[in-house]
Amino acid sequence: MAAIRAAIIGASGYSGEELIRLLIRHPAVDLKIITSRKEAGKKISAIFPRFADSPLCFTAPDVAEIAKTCDVAFLALPHGLAAEYAIPLIESGLKVIDISADFRIRSTEKYKEYYTVDHPSPELLKKAVYGLPERYREQIRKADLIACPGCYPTSIILPTAPLLAAGLVSTENIIVSSDSGVSGAGRKVDLAYIFPECNESVRAYGVVRHRHLPEIEQELAAAAGVDSLAMNFIPHLVPTNRGIFSTIILRPTAKFSAEAIAAAYEKAYGNERFVRVLEPGKLPDTKHVTLTNSCEIGYVYDDHTGNLIVCSVIDNLTKGASGQAVQDMNIRFGLEETLGLL
Amino acid sequence: MAAIRAAIIGASGYSGEELIRLLIRHPAVDLKIITSRKEAGKKISAIFPRFADSPLCFTAPDVAEIAKTCDVAFLALPHGLAAEYAIPLIESGLKVIDISADFRIRSTEKYKEYYTVDHPSPELLKKAVYGLPERYREQIRKADLIACPGCYPTSIILPTAPLLAAGLVSTENIIVSSDSGVSGAGRKVDLAYIFPECNESVRAYGVVRHRHLPEIEQELAAAAGVDSLAMNFIPHLVPTNRGIFSTIILRPTAKFSAEAIAAAYEKAYGNERFVRVLEPGKLPDTKHVTLTNSCEIGYVYDDHTGNLIVCSVIDNLTKGASGQAVQDMNIRFGLEETLGLL
Amino acid sequence: MAAIRAAIIGASGYSGEELIRLLIRHPAVDLKIITSRKEAGKKISAIFPRFADSPLCFTAPDVAEIAKTCDVAFLALPHGLAAEYAIPLIESGLKVIDISADFRIRSTEKYKEYYTVDHPSPELLKKAVYGLPERYREQIRKADLIACPGCYPTSIILPTAPLLAAGLVSTENIIVSSDSGVSGAGRKVDLAYIFPECNESVRAYGVVRHRHLPEIEQELAAAAGVDSLAMNFIPHLVPTNRGIFSTIILRPTAKFSAEAIAAAYEKAYGNERFVRVLEPGKLPDTKHVTLTNSCEIGYVYDDHTGNLIVCSVIDNLTKGASGQAVQDMNIRFGLEETLGLL
Amino acid sequence: MAAIRAAIIGASGYSGEELIRLLIRHPAVDLKIITSRKEAGKKISAIFPRFADSPLCFTAPDVAEIAKTCDVAFLALPHGLAAEYAIPLIESGLKVIDISADFRIRSTEKYKEYYTVDHPSPELLKKAVYGLPERYREQIRKADLIACPGCYPTSIILPTAPLLAAGLVSTENIIVSSDSGVSGAGRKVDLAYIFPECNESVRAYGVVRHRHLPEIEQELAAAAGVDSLAMNFIPHLVPTNRGIFSTIILRPTAKFSAEAIAAAYEKAYGNERFVRVLEPGKLPDTKHVTLTNSCEIGYVYDDHTGNLIVCSVIDNLTKGASGQAVQDMNIRFGLEETLGLL
Repeated sequence: MAAIRAAIIGASGYSGEELIRLLIRHPAVDLKIITSRKEAGKKISAIFPRFADSPLCFTAPDVAEIAKTCDVAFLALPHGLAAEYAIPLIESGLKVIDISADFRIRSTEKYKEYYTVDHPSPELLKKAVYGLPERYREQIRKADLIACPGCYPTSIILPTAPLLAAGLVSTENIIVSSDSGVSGAGRKVDLAYIFPECNESVRAYGVVRHRHLPEIEQELAAAAGVDSLAMNFIPHLVPTNRGIFSTIILRPTAKFSAEAIAAAYEKAYGNERFVRVLEPGKLPDTKHVTLTNSCEIGYVYDDHTGNLIVCSVIDNLTKGASGQAVQDMNIRFGLEETLGLL
Repeated sequence: MAAIRAAIIGASGYSGEELIRLLIRHPAVDLKIITSRKEAGKKISAIFPRFADSPLCFTAPDVAEIAKTCDVAFLALPHGLAAEYAIPLIESGLKVIDISADFRIRSTEKYKEYYTVDHPSPELLKKAVYGLPERYREQIRKADLIACPGCYPTSIILPTAPLLAAGLVSTENIIVSSDSGVSGAGRKVDLAYIFPECNESVRAYGVVRHRHLPEIEQELAAAAGVDSLAMNFIPHLVPTNRGIFSTIILRPTAKFSAEAIAAAYEKAYGNERFVRVLEPGKLPDTKHVTLTNSCEIGYVYDDHTGNLIVCSVIDNLTKGASGQAVQDMNIRFGLEETLGLL
Repeated sequence: MAAIRAAIIGASGYSGEELIRLLIRHPAVDLKIITSRKEAGKKISAIFPRFADSPLCFTAPDVAEIAKTCDVAFLALPHGLAAEYAIPLIESGLKVIDISADFRIRSTEKYKEYYTVDHPSPELLKKAVYGLPERYREQIRKADLIACPGCYPTSIILPTAPLLAAGLVSTENIIVSSDSGVSGAGRKVDLAYIFPECNESVRAYGVVRHRHLPEIEQELAAAAGVDSLAMNFIPHLVPTNRGIFSTIILRPTAKFSAEAIAAAYEKAYGNERFVRVLEPGKLPDTKHVTLTNSCEIGYVYDDHTGNLIVCSVIDNLTKGASGQAVQDMNIRFGLEETLGLL
Repeated sequence: MAAIRAAIIGASGYSGEELIRLLIRHPAVDLKIITSRKEAGKKISAIFPRFADSPLCFTAPDVAEIAKTCDVAFLALPHGLAAEYAIPLIESGLKVIDISADFRIRSTEKYKEYYTVDHPSPELLKKAVYGLPERYREQIRKADLIACPGCYPTSIILPTAPLLAAGLVSTENIIVSSDSGVSGAGRKVDLAYIFPECNESVRAYGVVRHRHLPEIEQELAAAAGVDSLAMNFIPHLVPTNRGIFSTIILRPTAKFSAEAIAAAYEKAYGNERFVRVLEPGKLPDTKHVTLTNSCEIGYVYDDHTGNLIVCSVIDNLTKGASGQAVQDMNIRFGLEETLGLL
């Protein structure tokens, strides 16, 4: 079988680095083009020395060239810019996998509310499929445009959606507190992110109206079969490079049943390779999933308050971004879903 | 004025080290005796090299000697052992400040439920005062036995109690997610705490029935003027040495009023030196309080869900243990409350 | 081609975990047996949750069973124990790759001097090949017993040996200062290694007569073609999980020639896939090689003192232990040398 | 006694923060003015929240105002700018303590060679005293301008100078490898210093011709009584906030004598409060001196190579910068040398 020819557009950040890492060793991919306006002309190893073996260079993005040369394009751009590339590339027959936020939110009103600009392409938005394979695998198989979920949303939707879908927990009073490693802020040069400001520090930020919130609410509402829901999502920054830990407090809709919870997870993830539900009483740890495409889920019922506490971990750059993008590509191109990801 | 003569009993852990640090430089204290069965006979600098200037040595605990020599004894022992020292020392006229858990919980039933042993001294328990100065200052002035609050409880009671006391938030559905640095686990030699297991790791533990829970519930119920309440407290371990970050989700009892919240905090802490409430919209960071006796509190109202999100930080070894113990001592002995703590 | 059937003996430490990680995904290996006396009977995922997909369990070591079932055995045991397994397994026709120290040092006197016990098997020692592929590839192809180099030695021999071999630097006054991450101490439960003792800490240890010294001196002397040499090797512990940084100060034998140095490295490593020599003026960083089998080398000549400063980095668990062991296996079994390692 | 009125000029970096921390609680100092062009008008707690109790604000620097109001001015400016303030302030009778590099190097040629600009004030340079109290205490007592040593130099000169002064070690072949925490790079917003680039990273930088080198060489030559010497100084960046660890390799001039070394250190530091020499065989650890003004020194003789290995630790922001500046102030103003520093 011919290799899938791939381009990464905007690859000089941490998600871009992770995509390069995964695609270089992917047995069915030929990574042809890696763009970065800022670094154009440099070898990728000049920015990411671990790729010293690769002859690849950053180039300035050239849509016509990518359209001619590639089968799939991964977009790793700041929000607002994806449409400019996605439209012509899709017209040229490529599949586009966007790891920015532009095509995740179905509602252009919500997009504007949270991103403060008009949606750059409401037409294209209609074609986009939300790239969470464990929930939208069939749609991904046929999608031209796959909107990769955000890192926090992945860590929250995976553990919560099956319980909502089974009607086991309420759509009200969902509360999520998440801790993220600093790579989640991107490769951003800002005082808040220099080492002495992050090390020996724990802080919350964006505790209301974080940009990932509408995406999480949209997907949890869909899982629950309701039009909308409102929840709290409170992110924190902790001094690790990678990893998200999400703690989710849920209210059971009826008398708690451990069997029902286990059954809902078994139904949702019994055959999934990248989601593992721990045996009751065990809790996850970010270090167990670092540099893997896995989401680990644990849960404990508190008979004291009647709440169910669900905890999940992912690597924010892998299952939370670039690994999931590769999983989507594998699905879209009919490959073994785990190819290049184990 | 004659110096207050002090003993620390059981001083070879991190709380003990912090007590030594604070008492050595306290201008009104003469640190006479530092005990540790395990390290008896060694200079304290053999265990804690930063005290190289001090001639003090660890000794085996000798109650008669302490009773004869000291005015105050700090107990930094594992739970269950405090009474053995507290009873004879109080009889000898000393003031006892216990940083273990033995005298924090008023209910011996709760103590047994959470600590799995009978309370070692229900009689003495009746005399104990909960050593949170911002709430029990007057009682501390006259106490023979001061039960220093736990680290998590301090970080949760300080930001929450004034809002409950003012009737601004409900006693139901209180949810707290806390992140603690690893020194919170004590100077414990255990696989779970070696560096490669903690670094690049975030994990939850004790998510139901943590031993600090009954203490938090007791104090929040007291603040609210109710007999009891049930809440969720979910602690996490993050890779820092020091610091606790607590995120508290509260439900306002009436239409949210920023002015009412501010007024409640102003009333509670307007004259407090060790609690600072940030201006609206600002959130705390553990690094702002490291090695200080301060608690920093920030809050944000989420009009989306109607919940109030309150965040607080303390240094778990200072305001969360030994600094608070020194603050209690200052109060009990009629000293300036901040002496040795700025 | 039939898969190579592999056993790991003593796999419950960090080197064992890294071997499991590499062998599970190695396309030409069938990992049959993983032993640990302490963890026998447990699934490997009970100890290392990231291997949740694997059905493998730890077993108690059973030499006869391993001999019958496997083609290669990796030994990841404390020093002194390797011979007990190596002798019968080699007799049964297996190839043995030992990542302990038992067969690295040619001199039984030196072994006794540094390890304080008699060498457990001087006979077998004669058969052992030092498993540094970049220097002993041809011998490794035929070896029954491969003694994998230590982590520090790998980081020091690779950058230094070619310069000694070319006569460009003196065998006298070689000074090496190395920084290692804490996983280099093993999965050891000891007060010195708990998080609060290692975080925000830098310390030296074993600054004279470290156990890796005779191995380094032996290989550098061999490279230089002299009987022996004496050097300083000063290791430090720094708060990272992985990575060794070695700084090597060398005295050129003649007027410094950048071309000669570059030529010596080009000759030694021009065709090597796992050693990369940086262009002049660039220096390595441990993060560039984390979780890879690469050694990165940079050097700067100081015309002020006339010394050549060479810096190198490896991942102590990969090129410094288990990755190198897999590279040795690939060579021994006639596979592509990089198989499973990219 | 009237309080010493102090100004800090250029206080928005980490050394500035440490100076504020030390001076605010100094019992004999009245901190009057804190300048920062960038932050002028803001409360100091807006930048450094731990100073929330202080009413002080940053102001734009106003030399006339400082001259009128203060007795001492600390300069915490980038190099090249100190003279502009020092000249008029000294003329106005203030004492100036400069923690920049401008007045440390006696030779204007060396200054130009390493800082690439002409020295801003060769006249004033002649008046400057090198502010290392353990070596220049008497001169500091009378100095108008005190040039505080750099952080690396402090960590290297203190352990090395007494051995050179006693003729016990050679001035040739001195080799120093140092590890520094990231605060040593200043509060600098640069890609190289963001958390994900520093965490899990060890790297060398400036391995030849580091700007601290001429200062170290100048002081070691002075201690040895020679005109000049040439040495290697190789700094590394490690993932801690604070702390410098220096490893110094020295060649004894005669047969090694443990007694002579101990005697030299006893003579130099027997009465010093801020330098502690460990008993033979013990080695320092940066965490033992964090947030203290102490330098801890340990040493081991290697009979294998005949080299003496000396290790030292300081807190780069305290003894390496602001703590030493306060020690200098105490000396200059006739105060107890340890005042405000214990």
